[in-house]
Amino acid sequence: MTNLPNDDRRALMMLSELIEPGDGELDDLLAEVGPIEAVKRIWEGDVPERLHRLTSASVSCTPDPAARADQIAAATEAAGARVLIPGEPGWPEQLRDLQTVCDADEPHVRPPRCLWVKGPHDLAELCARSVAIVGSRAASEYGQHLADDLAADLTASGWTIVSGGALGIDRAAHLGSLARGGATVAVLACGLEMPYPKANHSMFNMIAEQGMLLSEWPPGSTAMKHRFLTRNRVIAALTAGTVVVEAADRSGARNTARYAAELGRVLMFTPGPVTSSQSIGVHRLAREPWEARLVTCAEEVIEDVTGIGGPLASAPPPQRRPLDRLTEIEARLVESLPRGYVVDTARLAAAAGLPTDLASETLHRLQRMRWVDRIDDRWRLARNPRP
Amino acid sequence: MTNLPNDDRRALMMLSELIEPGDGELDDLLAEVGPIEAVKRIWEGDVPERLHRLTSASVSCTPDPAARADQIAAATEAAGARVLIPGEPGWPEQLRDLQTVCDADEPHVRPPRCLWVKGPHDLAELCARSVAIVGSRAASEYGQHLADDLAADLTASGWTIVSGGALGIDRAAHLGSLARGGATVAVLACGLEMPYPKANHSMFNMIAEQGMLLSEWPPGSTAMKHRFLTRNRVIAALTAGTVVVEAADRSGARNTARYAAELGRVLMFTPGPVTSSQSIGVHRLAREPWEARLVTCAEEVIEDVTGIGGPLASAPPPQRRPLDRLTEIEARLVESLPRGYVVDTARLAAAAGLPTDLASETLHRLQRMRWVDRIDDRWRLARNPRP
Repeated sequence: MTNLPNDDRRALMMLSELIEPGDGELDDLLAEVGPIEAVKRIWEGDVPERLHRLTSASVSCTPDPAARADQIAAATEAAGARVLIPGEPGWPEQLRDLQTVCDADEPHVRPPRCLWVKGPHDLAELCARSVAIVGSRAASEYGQHLADDLAADLTASGWTIVSGGALGIDRAAHLGSLARGGATVAVLACGLEMPYPKANHSMFNMIAEQGMLLSEWPPGSTAMKHRFLTRNRVIAALTAGTVVVEAADRSGARNTARYAAELGRVLMFTPGPVTSSQSIGVHRLAREPWEARLVTCAEEVIEDVTGIGGPLASAPPPQRRPLDRLTEIEARLVESLPRGYVVDTARLAAAAGLPTDLASETLHRLQRMRWVDRIDDRWRLARNPRP
Repeated sequence: MTNLPNDDRRALMMLSELIEPGDGELDDLLAEVGPIEAVKRIWEGDVPERLHRLTSASVSCTPDPAARADQIAAATEAAGARVLIPGEPGWPEQLRDLQTVCDADEPHVRPPRCLWVKGPHDLAELCARSVAIVGSRAASEYGQHLADDLAADLTASGWTIVSGGALGIDRAAHLGSLARGGATVAVLACGLEMPYPKANHSMFNMIAEQGMLLSEWPPGSTAMKHRFLTRNRVIAALTAGTVVVEAADRSGARNTARYAAELGRVLMFTPGPVTSSQSIGVHRLAREPWEARLVTCAEEVIEDVTGIGGPLASAPPPQRRPLDRLTEIEARLVESLPRGYVVDTARLAAAAGLPTDLASETLHRLQRMRWVDRIDDRWRLARNPRP
């Protein structure tokens, strides 16, 4: 008889070590039987052929999964980290949107099973108004300057900067935010006790104190190429939009960009000289059928992710401020709904400072007016709001 | 009894001196009674109040309009130029599209009444495959380099470069084309005997020999600010698309861009560093509701103006090369139809190397297949071709 982990959290930590994040087949099993039963079936070999093949070697050298789960929990604590599981307070609900981009070609795009986090914040709150800034590791001076500026200005306007903790653009974005006292979020592709790359060691320490480190992998996991790609979907899904600052012709940032576009997040890029190899990838983004928006400053980023334009916003050209046509309560709800997010009524009511029943009634009216879309019991800003 | 010019051409030359090009009220009068009768009515004061006010001073000091027309004709000949009038061989029919952007706010957007030209070419042929490259006078080294490169590469691919003969981007574009032996077209806002600015004197001489100088104003007309704006509509209308290479925040190039967009021509821009004041205007173009396309090289310009994409073209994302679905003759006709132009059957048949009746029959089929639109008896590539 297998010794099972004694709670869902430990079972999920255990499973994260066993099978790479985002795996659709395990995700389906979890949805069906829950984490503890899933561990039991894996140890008993009572799972689909592919899952069995993936896990049998690990299972045979781990006779006691409960003990192993305890070891991971201890390593997590030793790293000063904790584990968040779906649905509990602090879990960013927008990660659920990854369900919508499932694709047979890409087995690793399901929502995270659990997240290791380190930092003094509520992750959901931190990411409720967040933008990703990503780009090349081999960034130019120009690109780093731009990422730093954008991050600093967005931070000053109350937006959280999410990035991947890499050298180059990611680093410049994190530092730009930290310099303004921002609680920036670094989403890593390895265990939080040894954030990669080492050259960013002191930056990671600052982020753990002032912002938040995040990973889907348990302590002891090393950064591997495929893990960066898997990680990118989390950066795109956490945020209201992704800005690609520089990207060479073949760059991981383009992978994040594609996730953002597929998730219905706002995809943005900053232009550069056509003569710069580090701008080839961003200029190419502009020519893909992804509706990538050119941005040159934080104000334009905010305009794009809130969908509430200044005079240059492209949304409905005839009326400059269609919001003016709404009642104050309607407008407050629309303005509280960040573009690209799907938010439940209670959360939205709280953000707009309204009682839930009034918010619910108003949201249904806004739906009929085609300002918002309803998805199950959650709400999203309509793509082209029309009063 | 007034002494009238003895042919339409002279009457139009006369009227060009009298009333600024693009004037809607004179245009309506010309459409109604023809040029000679229009001169007669103006000299007799038998015209709408506004036209009378515009012309009475000139009329009173020009007792003999026929003699004045002869003087203009002599000055034209002395300048080595000639005058083209609408409908005659060499007249670019696409200028007619300006009828579609008439706007009460802008009295000067009607098609040209006649054109002074200088150069050894057929203007219509020259502009059948043409692209405008425009931008700042105070261009950066980067911008000039880019304009020069684009113009050279487009010329090498058989495209005519049209620009405004100004310093900066215009100059770089003309020179880039001339260096590759191109017949570049400079559209001026003054008489052809004294092309402005003088600093481009030797360039204008090269263009008059190898390409073509163009103006709506008779000899003796000086370049004035409002004339540049009037002129810009001709640059936009002559060409299949306009590329704005650099533009400061308030720039005439943006005016040309707006005409291009309103005419349904392809509007393109080249990006630059967001830190460059000369790129502010182009980046702003990208955020207007004009569907401006980011281009970084001649290939992308050609992709955009022909509407026949390489792998990166955005048109219909599902099928990469929808042309493959057409028969050879259908495809040849579609490929001969430059995006943004309206072309008559005979011209299109000639371009595709097909007998007119076969071309006509095929075009009607392509219309049913929604590949082309018919406007009177002329044809245009459909905006989003669908097989």
